[in-house]
Amino acid sequence: MARYDFSAPRLYLEGDLAAGAPVPLSKDQAHYLTNVLRLGNGDLVLAFNGRDGEWRCTLEGRKASATLHPAETTRPQPAPAALQLLFAPLKHARLDYMVQKAVEMGAGVLQPVITRRTQAARVNEDRMRANAVEAAEQCGILAVPEVRPAARLDALLAGWDPARLMVFCDEDAEVADPLAALRAAPRGPAAVVIGPEGGFDEAERAALLALPRHLRLSLGPRILRADTAAVAALALVGAVLGDLAGG
Amino acid sequence: MARYDFSAPRLYLEGDLAAGAPVPLSKDQAHYLTNVLRLGNGDLVLAFNGRDGEWRCTLEGRKASATLHPAETTRPQPAPAALQLLFAPLKHARLDYMVQKAVEMGAGVLQPVITRRTQAARVNEDRMRANAVEAAEQCGILAVPEVRPAARLDALLAGWDPARLMVFCDEDAEVADPLAALRAAPRGPAAVVIGPEGGFDEAERAALLALPRHLRLSLGPRILRADTAAVAALALVGAVLGDLAGG
Repeated sequence: MARYDFSAPRLYLEGDLAAGAPVPLSKDQAHYLTNVLRLGNGDLVLAFNGRDGEWRCTLEGRKASATLHPAETTRPQPAPAALQLLFAPLKHARLDYMVQKAVEMGAGVLQPVITRRTQAARVNEDRMRANAVEAAEQCGILAVPEVRPAARLDALLAGWDPARLMVFCDEDAEVADPLAALRAAPRGPAAVVIGPEGGFDEAERAALLALPRHLRLSLGPRILRADTAAVAALALVGAVLGDLAGG
Repeated sequence: MARYDFSAPRLYLEGDLAAGAPVPLSKDQAHYLTNVLRLGNGDLVLAFNGRDGEWRCTLEGRKASATLHPAETTRPQPAPAALQLLFAPLKHARLDYMVQKAVEMGAGVLQPVITRRTQAARVNEDRMRANAVEAAEQCGILAVPEVRPAARLDALLAGWDPARLMVFCDEDAEVADPLAALRAAPRGPAAVVIGPEGGFDEAERAALLALPRHLRLSLGPRILRADTAAVAALALVGAVLGDLAGG
């Protein structure tokens, strides 16, 4: 893989990207490009919207009237990632961090789950989306994960697709080779679920373990914070079942 | 593994821990236990020093004269972790985060390396140590990693133990199964090296690839921030070569 050029300004847009169709910029976007980055007429910006791949664009106009003119595609849009990350929401900076890291690790869906021991009472979806977009912009990622509204774990499990593997990061599991467990798992769509820092309660554990396709994953002999567990689990799952393995 | 009880106050101390030998507390420690946690005479505190395992202690005295009285060992001291993490220092919060996560993932040595493209000019070792201790306190970890002074990469490589495997997280490597590469690697002491966000330069890459035992590790098709790459690499290395695999 060629190194991604971090020096090129990269912007996520809501609008469509197509040759010959200028995209108006919001006030914030125009401010960022012209005042913060000090770009001017004709300067290069890479733009993506999560649907149309990445486009090399030129900036035209100034300030409030600035637009991006898509010139050519630089990378095609990848297929949406199938891997879901379910997590009990964390507070403040740790949630920001978890969202950013999940984007980097290739999660396709971010699903906050409310559990009996969940600490954060409310989940700010807009902030999660902003963090996901920022991580995608900074890391050259074209597929911005879908951020779903927070849902109760029991309701989610009641409607769970039985074909989807639930990888349950279980601190109470015996420490055993996580890779052997993943290699033995059925292939197909998968989700990783990270519990709250107080753990799932017994009824929640039982409901997870009652899913037809589930896997208890041990993440080693140390207790991990939830945001660390998310990155470690996505690395292991990606290396066995996902796109970290290449091919 | 039994769930660690996060509710028990847990304190790292410099002094020796042995039955019948009270440990005086520093002013900060006494303040934390008596004023922040509002503990009083006879309350339970778990203490560790990275050498003597974990001890159940009782708090005696008040304020500046408070001491901990070790009563019994709750967990033995584990052997020091052999895995080293070498990393180009990051700025501020990202460095704090990387240090905390490396402790959780079981790194035994934290070695900042100065590279040609390293952004942070100075490394605050005391802050790194404080972050390592805090992560160990919070996550029930008894082995606090050794924080080494920052060193130039070329000097480190010149004195490198040829028996130690260098796992080189290389964004320019072809995306290929990282687990197959790790399984084929020689067993023995290992280090993971994470480059600066601008990457290693050609001379540095050549020096890494000239080590007798090295392994280029691909972390998938996306560009990862350095702190994410550290957690992902430690998860994969731990799962194949280290203690995430159990046994």
